[in-house]
Amino acid sequence: MHSFTRRSFLAQASTLPLLFQIRAGAQDPAVFPGLITRMAEPENLEFPFSSLSTAITPNEQFFVRSHFAVPKIDNEKWTLSVEGTVKKPLTLTLENLKKLPKRSMKATIECAGNDRVFLTPTVAGLQWGHGAVSNAEWTGVSLSSVLEAAGLNDTAVEVILEGADKGQVNSDPKSPGPISFARSIPIAKAKSDDVILAYQMNGVDLSASHGAPLRAVVGGWYGMASVKWLTRLNVVSKPFGGFWQTLEYSYWEQLGDVPTLAPLTQMQVKSAIARPGRGEVIPAGKSFRIFGAAWAGESAVAKVEVSTDGGKTWSVAKLLDKPERLTWSLWEFTWNVPRQAGPAQLFVRATDSSGHTQPTTRDPNRRSYMINHLVPTDVVIRS
Amino acid sequence: MHSFTRRSFLAQASTLPLLFQIRAGAQDPAVFPGLITRMAEPENLEFPFSSLSTAITPNEQFFVRSHFAVPKIDNEKWTLSVEGTVKKPLTLTLENLKKLPKRSMKATIECAGNDRVFLTPTVAGLQWGHGAVSNAEWTGVSLSSVLEAAGLNDTAVEVILEGADKGQVNSDPKSPGPISFARSIPIAKAKSDDVILAYQMNGVDLSASHGAPLRAVVGGWYGMASVKWLTRLNVVSKPFGGFWQTLEYSYWEQLGDVPTLAPLTQMQVKSAIARPGRGEVIPAGKSFRIFGAAWAGESAVAKVEVSTDGGKTWSVAKLLDKPERLTWSLWEFTWNVPRQAGPAQLFVRATDSSGHTQPTTRDPNRRSYMINHLVPTDVVIRS
Repeated sequence: MHSFTRRSFLAQASTLPLLFQIRAGAQDPAVFPGLITRMAEPENLEFPFSSLSTAITPNEQFFVRSHFAVPKIDNEKWTLSVEGTVKKPLTLTLENLKKLPKRSMKATIECAGNDRVFLTPTVAGLQWGHGAVSNAEWTGVSLSSVLEAAGLNDTAVEVILEGADKGQVNSDPKSPGPISFARSIPIAKAKSDDVILAYQMNGVDLSASHGAPLRAVVGGWYGMASVKWLTRLNVVSKPFGGFWQTLEYSYWEQLGDVPTLAPLTQMQVKSAIARPGRGEVIPAGKSFRIFGAAWAGESAVAKVEVSTDGGKTWSVAKLLDKPERLTWSLWEFTWNVPRQAGPAQLFVRATDSSGHTQPTTRDPNRRSYMINHLVPTDVVIRS
Repeated sequence: MHSFTRRSFLAQASTLPLLFQIRAGAQDPAVFPGLITRMAEPENLEFPFSSLSTAITPNEQFFVRSHFAVPKIDNEKWTLSVEGTVKKPLTLTLENLKKLPKRSMKATIECAGNDRVFLTPTVAGLQWGHGAVSNAEWTGVSLSSVLEAAGLNDTAVEVILEGADKGQVNSDPKSPGPISFARSIPIAKAKSDDVILAYQMNGVDLSASHGAPLRAVVGGWYGMASVKWLTRLNVVSKPFGGFWQTLEYSYWEQLGDVPTLAPLTQMQVKSAIARPGRGEVIPAGKSFRIFGAAWAGESAVAKVEVSTDGGKTWSVAKLLDKPERLTWSLWEFTWNVPRQAGPAQLFVRATDSSGHTQPTTRDPNRRSYMINHLVPTDVVIRS
């Protein structure tokens, strides 16, 4: 793709004035202000959301979420084992997988902690801004076709997706000993068309940071389910209670008035403003293109609304892409900026096809995840 | 019972030399060296295990485990509600419950963190010694008869036992908002004879500290299941994931090589030495009665063995009570103390009727619970 031209283009771009680079970045995906480092080791890198310009996020801009160091994998020796409560356990090479029917699927992946930096008081975890979310076209094989080849037993209830990344979780004294990153999905989701085992991302082979040689993409679900560096599919006959779906990546669901721990699953309906960015200076008395993305997990976006007066009044934004399940839609709204200089507060809110609108306040039982309440973008109007 | 004579006896006893009081305490349950405070507020008090003398623990010596302050309950206004997936929801007064068939059951209750003080390195949680365990005869009604009166729907899988004690768990940032203490048990256990809703303990009405007016006693399970100040039975159609069976009172069970979080259930086979106590001075060249208790949850104790040489050799101890499920057995072993002065290390280990013996080493995946590995009692032989 465009990765070939990247270096020379960036070399040129770096000699241009900074403001121009950012503005250019918003127009041209080949120029962007780099990834935001939220943690250096292991790699946790954020898409600089203000550089959003196309529905497909270029691979170099796609956010990176890692729980452990990138595992060293020799593609020639790598295999995917399919085991557990199956009729015929399998050990598949990359070559074997590539012989299965090839499929592509556009899917937005959002980290469950995206926008955590906006929570007050501060909570533990990576302090992501708007950009722990990106959108790509994934190519690989349907999980369902691999499961079909192995043959599920009737007792199967979930598939555990296990990665090659492994370590000891030191941030939580309740964690078990060294463990591989693993996450389960129910059989119904596993058999649906929403889940693919991808070896390509936007038409090129996966990079190491993105899970080479094979990763899961669980469309519509928060990113923790899209296990990278996939090495094992373990079909189980009772619900899995792994670390990353109990102590981490879970929330308190109300059962009457008693909270019960539930694993995170679907992305909640959400939208975010890419431009203007926080603190951006807007010329008074002119029109300004407010621009961003909206997504709704397993649903499609039905409506995006913008407020330029701190949430008092709302106007419908224009959707630039036909809303689809699993993948985000870009939207824009032309703001007739007042002549009066001073601060302004912008909001965006999305509604999905089932009628769910983003909440205005934060539910603390979501712990530090599923952050889709309205977050203001404060800007400055200058004449 | 003996509570009437307690005060006057203790008044006398307190004028006796300390050593005599402790020795007398081991013979006579009316004299004992007080409960050990592990936390003042809420009340967490330990049975001083070296004062063990009878299979039934006197009420005043029974250990107390509280998660929140003792709730203020007016027995006249108190009710037990039976709800959820039942044919006929019920609201029962104490009077209603006392009209149901009355039953008594001897049961040992052990806190899941009993002996935590012996873990190295130190782990978070109350630092219990041997005495977060006691044994009583409980009187009340079978949980099964209450459930039968309400009529379970076919979809019922668990019963959540909910207490009147409520608060915010500040020790864990992952805890939900203010919650009532609650724990679930599967329907099969709930329908068994092992579970009673008790209003009496050793023949007298429950005290406030022990859960008045009504508590659950889930025979064979760790104490967290025996919910005190019971106010609600909530029959549910999917497994409950409450705080005290996920973030607390759970362990990592191995699913192949992937740990999965599981709620604590049955007490593991275990034994403890009451006398001699740690550091006790033993006369050389005489015989000494090593004495203690052994229990095995839903199983019965089959064998108790003692080592007086640091675990090199083992001898079978004598069981003083006929082993039964749910309730502990006292045991003794006559030690022919060597003439040689010096340190000695004693061990006891029990085996249950299914052949499980206490492990010699600690499994870290049990987190800070289910502590039944062998723990030495170091004593001093003096000539």
